This record gives sequence, C-alpha cells and structure tokens, in this order.
Amino acid sequence: MQERLKTVTAWLKEENIEAVFLNSTENVYYLSNFYTDPHERLMGIFVFKQAQPLFVLPAMEVNQLKDAGWEYEIIGYSDHENPWDLIQKAIDTRKLEKAEKVALEKEILSYGRSEAFLSFFPKAKVISVEDKLNQMRVVKNKDEIDVIKRATKMADFGVQVGIDSLTEGVTEMEVLAKIEFELKKKGIREMSFSTMVLFGEKSGDPHGNPGDRKLKAGDMVLFDLGVVLDGYCSDITRTVAFKSITEKQKEIYNTVLKAQKAALQASQPGARIGDLDTVARDIITEAGYGDYFPHRIGHGMGINVHEFPSMSHLNNGILKEGMVYTIEPGIYLPGIGGVRIEDDVLITGDGFETLTKFPKELQIIE
Amino acid sequence: MQERLKTVTAWLKEENIEAVFLNSTENVYYLSNFYTDPHERLMGIFVFKQAQPLFVLPAMEVNQLKDAGWEYEIIGYSDHENPWDLIQKAIDTRKLEKAEKVALEKEILSYGRSEAFLSFFPKAKVISVEDKLNQMRVVKNKDEIDVIKRATKMADFGVQVGIDSLTEGVTEMEVLAKIEFELKKKGIREMSFSTMVLFGEKSGDPHGNPGDRKLKAGDMVLFDLGVVLDGYCSDITRTVAFKSITEKQKEIYNTVLKAQKAALQASQPGARIGDLDTVARDIITEAGYGDYFPHRIGHGMGINVHEFPSMSHLNNGILKEGMVYTIEPGIYLPGIGGVRIEDDVLITGDGFETLTKFPKELQIIE
Repeated sequence: MQERLKTVTAWLKEENIEAVFLNSTENVYYLSNFYTDPHERLMGIFVFKQAQPLFVLPAMEVNQLKDAGWEYEIIGYSDHENPWDLIQKAIDTRKLEKAEKVALEKEILSYGRSEAFLSFFPKAKVISVEDKLNQMRVVKNKDEIDVIKRATKMADFGVQVGIDSLTEGVTEMEVLAKIEFELKKKGIREMSFSTMVLFGEKSGDPHGNPGDRKLKAGDMVLFDLGVVLDGYCSDITRTVAFKSITEKQKEIYNTVLKAQKAALQASQPGARIGDLDTVARDIITEAGYGDYFPHRIGHGMGINVHEFPSMSHLNNGILKEGMVYTIEPGIYLPGIGGVRIEDDVLITGDGFETLTKFPKELQIIE
Repeated sequence: MQERLKTVTAWLKEENIEAVFLNSTENVYYLSNFYTDPHERLMGIFVFKQAQPLFVLPAMEVNQLKDAGWEYEIIGYSDHENPWDLIQKAIDTRKLEKAEKVALEKEILSYGRSEAFLSFFPKAKVISVEDKLNQMRVVKNKDEIDVIKRATKMADFGVQVGIDSLTEGVTEMEVLAKIEFELKKKGIREMSFSTMVLFGEKSGDPHGNPGDRKLKAGDMVLFDLGVVLDGYCSDITRTVAFKSITEKQKEIYNTVLKAQKAALQASQPGARIGDLDTVARDIITEAGYGDYFPHRIGHGMGINVHEFPSMSHLNNGILKEGMVYTIEPGIYLPGIGGVRIEDDVLITGDGFETLTKFPKELQIIE
C-alpha cells in the first residue's frame, strides 16, 4: 500500500477507528496524488482499519484517477446515481466490525455528508482526522519542497512583473491583469488566492480590493500574490514606493522590515511558533504601531495556501525541519496607506531558508 | 428589516425554527449584500425566530460590513479570540425559548461548526435551510438579471478574445492567459471557474486541463469560461474549428447544436426541468452518440456558477419566470475531440431569453 495510506491505516489501528472519510481536495491529493475538485459532486477516499481503501468520484474522472496511480477499489458514479447507495454496498462487502469510532474532516466535511457517512456507523464516536493529516502534511519532504520552491520562484516573478508595470495613471486592475497574464503564459493555471494590487490609501486596508484606482507619485504599492503549481502554493507580499516617499511611509516600511527580519531570525528548529509573532509584534508595538498590525504573523503553506499551523502568538507548537510557512507582518494606516512584507520560509536542519527571494529593502520606483 | 431577512424570519416562524446559521459566502451575500470569504476564519449570519439577527466576522472586516448596510448586531473578533464564545454571549442575551428546531446549511456547514452551533441548542431537531434559500434565490429579480446580463456580456467578450488569439502553434495556456488578461483589464477580478481552453483531442475529455498543447490545423477548439461580476456569475462554452474540419467533426458539431437549440426551445415557464435534458439527450442518442454525453444538460446559475436547480432528466421541478440556468450539451469522442455548446438562459414571462449572445453556428477560423 502507498506510504501515506499506510500511515493513515496505522493510525486507525492505533486509535481503534473503524473507518475514516476524507473529502477535501487537499487531503485526497496528499493521500492519492490525484488532484480534483468536482464542486458539488461527491468525491473522496474511505480508509478502513481492516479493509482495502475505496475512492468515490464522478464516473468521468475515473480514468484520470487510474492514471494518477490509484490501485484500490473505485466507485465512479453518474449524475443520476446516488453515490451513497453505492458506497453503502461497497462498505457492506467489507464486513466491518461494529464501529466504536469513525473519523472525518470536522473542519471540511459538510453536515449533510457527515450525516450520510455516520448513518453507516450508528452510535460511533466521531473523531477529527484533521490533526493527524495536519501532522503528516506539516513536514514537507524533498519532493514537496522542490515543488514549493518552483512555486515561490513564480511568485517572485509575479512581483517583478508588477513592479515593471508601474507607470503614472495605470490602474490596480491593469497591473494585476499583467501579472496574471505573464504567469499564465508560463503555464500557471491558478493563483493560490485572489491577487492583490493596492495603491496609496487603498494599501492601508488589509482587506482592500483592487479596482480602478490610478497610480500617482507618492503612492505606496502593495502586491500580495501566489500561484498553485503542481498542487502546491506560494504566497508573497512586497510593498514599494512610487516616485517618492514621505518620512512617515519610510518609518512604517522600515518598522515592518525590521519586524519581518526578526521573525525570520527566530525561525529555528525547536523554536516555539508563537514566539515568531511575539518578536515581530513587539517591534511594531514599540514603534507605536501595535494597533495597526491586526493579524497574525503568518500561516503554514503547502497544498493549501493557508494551512496548519496558524502562526499566532498563542501557538505553543514547535518548529521542525521541513515546515514551510509565511512571515508577513504589516502596518496599515487608514486613509494613508500600508506596508506588508511577506516571505515563504522553510525550516532547515539548523535554521531557515527564505524561499521567496525578491529583494525587500525599500525600493522607490521611478 | 431588510426584505430578504424578513422572508427568512417569516419562514422560521412558520416552521417554528428558533434559529438559523448561514455560513456560506453566497447565502450571506444574498441576505446582507456583503460579499466576503475569510477562508478558515468564521463568518456568518444568525437569524432568530424572535430576536434581532447577528453577524459574526473577523474584526478587520467590520467597517466593510457596515458600509454594505448591515444595521443589526455585529460580532467582530480578533485572531486570538474564540468567536463561538462571543456568539454564545450574544445568544444568551436574546433569551430564546428552548429550541425544538434549528436550521443550518447542511450542504455547506462543516461538521465542526455544526457541532459548535448545535451545542447552543441541545436536542433541537436539525433542519436544512438550503431548500428555503434555493427557493428564494432561484427566481432572480430585475437587479440580479441586470448584473447577470453584464456578466454574460463579459463571457461573450472572453470567447471573442479567445478566437482572436488562435494562430498556428499557440498553446492552450497562452490563449487562456490572453482571455483572462483582457477580462481583468476590464475590471474582472475573478473568473467564475477555472477557464478551459482545449485543442484537438484534448477537447474530447470533458474534464481535460489546458496545458502546452500547440494549435494545429484541423483541431477543434473548446472554450469554457465565465466571470464573477458584482457577485454574480456567467458561464459560456463555444467550440470552433481551426482551419479545417472533418465530416465526423461537423456531424458531432451539428448534433450538439441541434440538441442545444431543442433544449432552449423547451425552456418555457411551466415546463418540467428534466424534459430539457431529455429532449437534448434524445437527439444525441438518436444520432448514435448517447454514450458520449456523460453529463446533465445544465445547472442553475447566479451567485454560484453552479446552483439550484440541477438540470438532470430526473428533475421534476417546473421552470418559472426569472430563473437563470445553463444549457450545455456535449459530445466527447476520446482521442478525437469534443464539442460543447453552452448558453446562459433566462425564463421570461412567455418563453426564454438567451443571455450569452456569441454566435453558435459552426465557425472555421482561418
């Protein structure tokens, strides 16, 4: 059996869990090497303590699943069939013991699908499988790191395209369109989230939306973007000044940069995760901008652009070699503008590697 | 109280449901005019049978919610707070009766969030709110139709850009990049789904992925794309021939076109929804291609690109004025190529209006 499925099966045995249903595109990809999102149609993997796994998906994707290397039972259903009836039959043939516990993705699986799944296992206690999958996924292997490095290289390229597109009067959406155009020409099918290009006072809103705001001298310009490449994400933020910069803008830029570098330096195997937030937040607070840094320092990154762990100051988890996450402090002054600087970081055997390489020293674009 | 919230409250009274939790971006937008997707962070609306509604969302989005016109209680929480604790307090102040029933989005709400919500209402029966919201959303009002018409116009434009980009040797991804570039320059921030551009034999796979396949004379070219505009979607498919066409390709094109037009003609208020699939499928089956049309004829479209109703032959629902959906028959010959033709359709008082206007007669692009 494939290594990752074996790990899940071993966990089921250890915890005496009869069956687990994995329904998310991301966990399914991680376990099967098959990336699919059939939207409202049911898709997922059932893994059993003492029986062969089972993949359910729309019939028209069965061949792609086989191509991806799935060697176990497959239920391919048509639009006029109820897949749960077919799943019930497949489970019946497995002659499972009466389940004391079953597991599912508590944060992902819909209430309706959980009802259908749990109806096969009356009175079983419901366990979350997410902690287990998070623990498996949080440490990336060499292949995964290689893919992520290619994805971060594309993110660097996206920022370069954005900066090269800055001319007086261009709109946020025009710059955004150019960034995605150049990335798609390089084969990127999907951005890892909705690209952000924000000018001037609009960069002062951490959840602002790009629009037809025109670029003017003296604007700060914030880019936040990433790509999905072979199923893995990247995520970078850079902020530059256009033509000129005020002392105030320079002060917030350098404060954010100092905080960002401090959090990077704190990135060591064995370090407490929450300390990365604290060390950056302390610098921003001391500079008088604590109230203007309203979000956590970062998040794990991999198959999901936001994944485990959440890098808040409350996180008592410990950094381990192979973990990949973002470090992205920011200061947002309403009406004036904002600065965020974000890198993707890999924990190595004895420290960290910054995967996004785009320069971070303050740039004033002419 | 705003009209749509009133309708939900009236339903709660009618059904004696104490509270409902709406968690999906789409239903929240429909009820509040506030479009947001804070990913893993909790966001949603609680509506009560006998108390004021409540909106919970990340603190940094509170101002945007107020700007969108929300007039009731708001819980804006920071990353270090547990929003469910704050929700519990807000619900406690409402002094609700002991609930016999509560409602939630069975198809959307995660098992974990349902556990948190239901813990406030021990032993309450769980009702799906989706049927109610589907019934509300399925009939579009004039404002919604106006937005959708603007979105379909952009989809037509996207196909035109795609066709204009066809030259010998261009890749699928290059054409795709050009389509999205031109749409984004017009202000489109988001496509309604991952754009499809498929050449030749790749169009023969209904779930193929665009890549670096180069365009050759004799290829069929399939475009499937749509945009999100002011929260509403469009969705169009067109297939053209490049330079030349075989008799076989022409036959499948004209069969699909005939089936598509027949389903459009069957689009009348009062018609049975499933009949639209049947009338198209019969034409394709009679032509000998029944096995190569593996999906339903279409789907409802609005805030979601795929929404209620599902237009399968089993659907006994009845078409009503104001409904908007797709009609998209296809024939896919493995290794050879495929044809799909898709329009967005509005049911009018006495028939239908095709919202996507791009020509459908067979085009051979030189």
